[in-house]
Amino acid sequence: MVVKVAINGFGTIGKRVADAVTAQDDMDVVGVTKTRPTIEADLAIDAGYPFYTAIADRKQAFVDAGIEVQGTLDDLLQEADIVIDGSPGKFGQENKDKYAAAGVKGIFQGGEKHDLTGVSFNSLANYSESFGKDMVRVVSCNTTGLCRTLYPVYKEYGIETVYAVMIRRSADPRDSKKGPINAIEPVLKVPSHHGPDVQTCIHDLNIQTMAVKVPTTIMHLHSNIVELKQEVPSEDIVKLWENTPRVKLVDGGKGIASTAQIMEYARDLGRPRSDLNEIAVWREGIHTVGKVLYYYQAIHQESDVVPENIDAIRAMMELEEDNMKSIEKTNNALGIN
Amino acid sequence: MVVKVAINGFGTIGKRVADAVTAQDDMDVVGVTKTRPTIEADLAIDAGYPFYTAIADRKQAFVDAGIEVQGTLDDLLQEADIVIDGSPGKFGQENKDKYAAAGVKGIFQGGEKHDLTGVSFNSLANYSESFGKDMVRVVSCNTTGLCRTLYPVYKEYGIETVYAVMIRRSADPRDSKKGPINAIEPVLKVPSHHGPDVQTCIHDLNIQTMAVKVPTTIMHLHSNIVELKQEVPSEDIVKLWENTPRVKLVDGGKGIASTAQIMEYARDLGRPRSDLNEIAVWREGIHTVGKVLYYYQAIHQESDVVPENIDAIRAMMELEEDNMKSIEKTNNALGIN
Amino acid sequence: MVVKVAINGFGTIGKRVADAVTAQDDMDVVGVTKTRPTIEADLAIDAGYPFYTAIADRKQAFVDAGIEVQGTLDDLLQEADIVIDGSPGKFGQENKDKYAAAGVKGIFQGGEKHDLTGVSFNSLANYSESFGKDMVRVVSCNTTGLCRTLYPVYKEYGIETVYAVMIRRSADPRDSKKGPINAIEPVLKVPSHHGPDVQTCIHDLNIQTMAVKVPTTIMHLHSNIVELKQEVPSEDIVKLWENTPRVKLVDGGKGIASTAQIMEYARDLGRPRSDLNEIAVWREGIHTVGKVLYYYQAIHQESDVVPENIDAIRAMMELEEDNMKSIEKTNNALGIN
Amino acid sequence: MVVKVAINGFGTIGKRVADAVTAQDDMDVVGVTKTRPTIEADLAIDAGYPFYTAIADRKQAFVDAGIEVQGTLDDLLQEADIVIDGSPGKFGQENKDKYAAAGVKGIFQGGEKHDLTGVSFNSLANYSESFGKDMVRVVSCNTTGLCRTLYPVYKEYGIETVYAVMIRRSADPRDSKKGPINAIEPVLKVPSHHGPDVQTCIHDLNIQTMAVKVPTTIMHLHSNIVELKQEVPSEDIVKLWENTPRVKLVDGGKGIASTAQIMEYARDLGRPRSDLNEIAVWREGIHTVGKVLYYYQAIHQESDVVPENIDAIRAMMELEEDNMKSIEKTNNALGIN
Repeated sequence: MVVKVAINGFGTIGKRVADAVTAQDDMDVVGVTKTRPTIEADLAIDAGYPFYTAIADRKQAFVDAGIEVQGTLDDLLQEADIVIDGSPGKFGQENKDKYAAAGVKGIFQGGEKHDLTGVSFNSLANYSESFGKDMVRVVSCNTTGLCRTLYPVYKEYGIETVYAVMIRRSADPRDSKKGPINAIEPVLKVPSHHGPDVQTCIHDLNIQTMAVKVPTTIMHLHSNIVELKQEVPSEDIVKLWENTPRVKLVDGGKGIASTAQIMEYARDLGRPRSDLNEIAVWREGIHTVGKVLYYYQAIHQESDVVPENIDAIRAMMELEEDNMKSIEKTNNALGIN
Repeated sequence: MVVKVAINGFGTIGKRVADAVTAQDDMDVVGVTKTRPTIEADLAIDAGYPFYTAIADRKQAFVDAGIEVQGTLDDLLQEADIVIDGSPGKFGQENKDKYAAAGVKGIFQGGEKHDLTGVSFNSLANYSESFGKDMVRVVSCNTTGLCRTLYPVYKEYGIETVYAVMIRRSADPRDSKKGPINAIEPVLKVPSHHGPDVQTCIHDLNIQTMAVKVPTTIMHLHSNIVELKQEVPSEDIVKLWENTPRVKLVDGGKGIASTAQIMEYARDLGRPRSDLNEIAVWREGIHTVGKVLYYYQAIHQESDVVPENIDAIRAMMELEEDNMKSIEKTNNALGIN
Repeated sequence: MVVKVAINGFGTIGKRVADAVTAQDDMDVVGVTKTRPTIEADLAIDAGYPFYTAIADRKQAFVDAGIEVQGTLDDLLQEADIVIDGSPGKFGQENKDKYAAAGVKGIFQGGEKHDLTGVSFNSLANYSESFGKDMVRVVSCNTTGLCRTLYPVYKEYGIETVYAVMIRRSADPRDSKKGPINAIEPVLKVPSHHGPDVQTCIHDLNIQTMAVKVPTTIMHLHSNIVELKQEVPSEDIVKLWENTPRVKLVDGGKGIASTAQIMEYARDLGRPRSDLNEIAVWREGIHTVGKVLYYYQAIHQESDVVPENIDAIRAMMELEEDNMKSIEKTNNALGIN
Repeated sequence: MVVKVAINGFGTIGKRVADAVTAQDDMDVVGVTKTRPTIEADLAIDAGYPFYTAIADRKQAFVDAGIEVQGTLDDLLQEADIVIDGSPGKFGQENKDKYAAAGVKGIFQGGEKHDLTGVSFNSLANYSESFGKDMVRVVSCNTTGLCRTLYPVYKEYGIETVYAVMIRRSADPRDSKKGPINAIEPVLKVPSHHGPDVQTCIHDLNIQTMAVKVPTTIMHLHSNIVELKQEVPSEDIVKLWENTPRVKLVDGGKGIASTAQIMEYARDLGRPRSDLNEIAVWREGIHTVGKVLYYYQAIHQESDVVPENIDAIRAMMELEEDNMKSIEKTNNALGIN
């Protein structure tokens, strides 16, 4: 069985998931949508994706721009088994109703709330909870990053409390409207919503978070403090993460001093769009003092959830029961070792 | 008695302390030094500060630039009771020897290590330890900020552990050489040196710190997590800090959302050089959950230690035994309410 | 006669003009307005400005925030001879009608179009055109900067063509919403509107402009190329501008390498809000090759038009016929030498 | 004949040229050098490039880092016909002497001066001047960009004068040390050196340039004013550049408003390292007024000279006499249409 996947919203996440689906042998893209005839619409056409208009009455705008439109979102849903919702926030409920009405499963992104689907997804932490489900939310880039590094520590050693401070990029590289240009802006609601969001995947983890925005576009960075249930040597944590999928240790000593050099590394690796699907953790920054673990991790906000979307398709469509097998299959197809 | 103060290094800190000394009635600037005939040398002359060359054999460069030089640093030391060392890092030991040889007391800045003087200084936390001392180090802007908010909490309620994550500006506004322009850079030595530095002023405080650099020039921001010895309502912490000198609560609800608006506020207050000597704490961000206190504070790295330098002079010169009286006197002279 | 000035909009321009009016002996602020109870409203109250609500039905919001409101904009207009319109763009026509209906003169800012008033204003270039007028527009910060340096050259030597490339800051320091964070954005309408805008003050100057936005908050920079009607040595241009009011030559050789050091210089000069009302021109960058003059100038976008607003009041209220006398009076009161 | 190419300095330019050489069928990489065992050394090994140490006595540092070293630069030169000098500036003369002594041809980059080789290279403008030569300099990214768009205009319509204002990125993405973070910095030497540099390729073009640095990492942008010898409709210039190799017109109307969206476009095109070898020119920004042409172009500083290096190899090794044939061959191999 090859699952037929629709991409509703060929934007930052949508375009990446489309290409990632295409790279798998058990699923295929049957069409993508867009609301406006921008350069990305041209690129979707060039990539050979059947193109549909997300908003029915805007078809003419695409035709005027010389873009061949196969139909509307409703038409596309007729062709699909499952849809990746890559639309901007706030349209979740409306879209979910549409997908349900068309008898199509739906995967939402972290901009939507957990309550929309009642099931949130991280490949490592709670894959099985989405098995066979109709509507699932893949958690945000930040939450995905926290789950990837915390879950193995939680399973292996036990965690009393996590304090995570998230230093967030303010805008994506392609988004040149948003600032700040020269300021740091805290999220004044304390603790922030990210802690409870992690708990949608790792249910009984005690985690508190704070967050600030800083004037950079390329990656988030988390400064994490973990009170463990036992003393663990730093080296054991290093080894644990060396063997954790989608976690990549990087070395300050090799010249990777900042998020800039991590992104350069991804470019040199030849990754599509110079993305880094893995969570980068600085090896030298992993340090335990007594029962407390300190570490820094960097999150490529545009792409870390892409493999999670693929795994979620596999779980929801019941293609694979074992999360580790799905992870490995996805990773191999995407060149993540 | 009017204490005669020399300023060795009329740079970021030196020029501010010079003006702050001038604003007091119990001390006076007898001269300032500089190593190069930049615009700041002109400004020192315009301000009426007797001008000396920090490096003896560079006198001619100043003369060539039309700057009248009274002599060298050695000459200046003959005129002074105490010297503010505003020279860049690494010259501490050499300068301390010079000051001692000239029989002049010396105040060093946070770029130097505690061991240089064996006594570190924060007005609130440990003023009396510097009373009558010859060589004292005023701790760095970040450490000063941590001492100001943590000390009253520590005294009033007791603290089990502080976890502070310091999100640091990468360069001062006037320093246009340093980056990064678009990256976040963690300090990979974990925990960072800032924790032990706080302990030079609050000796038995259990504090662990992490630090990252971000592409902004205007303020540091600390995201702090404090495990208290007891449960304390958020409002009580708010009240405590409302009554703490050199701590200023700011309101997100009044439009102060980021460090940019804090700096704008300082401009509107008419502060010299648009500085903010106080530590700014967001009122809405002060939040306790059980025994854990969360808060954000912003540090104006160029100026928060300026009143501390004044108080340190008073302690070392035995002008005032009571730290709260010195703080009040300094604050009144500087327009800090 | 002391002219009664209302400030409609106590924001970036309004608060500065209010303080500048207060510094003059022939005019006084009778009240200021604001639309929301932000920290700037508190500051207006603290500064002793009678406070009015710009939007009539928002009075309660101010009362709730503890701010004493004297009345509405309409009430304020009853007290005033002339109003400084500091409201954001697009309200010009509506406000002009209000001012006219109340029999009050109005000064608009450069965000409005020339057609709104039919008269645009620059103190040096065309002061007399506003003499006795009811409604006048002070041109934008960029246009003001171009007029200040180009007008004396145009009068003294004649100009064939000006090509000005304006490298604009993207947001003001206090505006932390706008980007870009890491991009350069050209104004694709070529030539840009700035050339015709200069012609509203220097009517037969042949000037063409291009403009880009860059990720900085502190100053605009213009890279100007001027085809003169005759060969002029670089030194003569330097001398001309040394004797031009509100133009300040700065020296790269003294360490002023970028807009950052210019702003630091303004801080050190002790200017209110660390503003620089003058246009800064790099001395070393003034260079003629044959009949072509090249130079760079930096524009402090928040404050360069402030003295122009004062002069415009004087012209419109017929307080002073001679522009050079008004300029000198304004400058003396504001500490601009 | 397959030309044997050595890469001396596997950095920003070196690693890109290495991959571009590998993509051709008439040349091959015989080895690369590096001075330090950074992550890029690992990547060179992973890519299968024979690895040599650039500095003979640092061999042990690589061995310690687990990197297999084939020998020193001197050893590598024995294997090569021609070497790409990707070393940082200031080593040009020393390296040229080494290459000459080893009987190997050398290609230098734009950081070196024209006098080093006496021959500078741009594929479109002066390919034939490098035919058979031993030592050639490929001009800088900015000069390459100017040559690509100006040369066809110069040939087709004639140019009186070019005024180019170059708004330069301050640091490459991977370089997180350099600033400024929030400032604009002009090059005070006026006109700048870029004009004469263009003349090393288009010898009798009258061009004057100014330059500023701005806080961005991704692209330079040129704001160009060209006084033509005749009136030319804007559309004719558009058509000319549509047919010029390595020039790519982009559309603001399709959402490409800034350099950020150009770089995103390159990512979406799937280019290696998300590079854009072409010069991007905004279609809407191309505008003629009388005999004056205005346009904006964006330069990807890390990669635009890469195809030029390939063509230079072909010219110097006498593989191809016709520049348009080499350009086409290079472009096809690199996926530049």
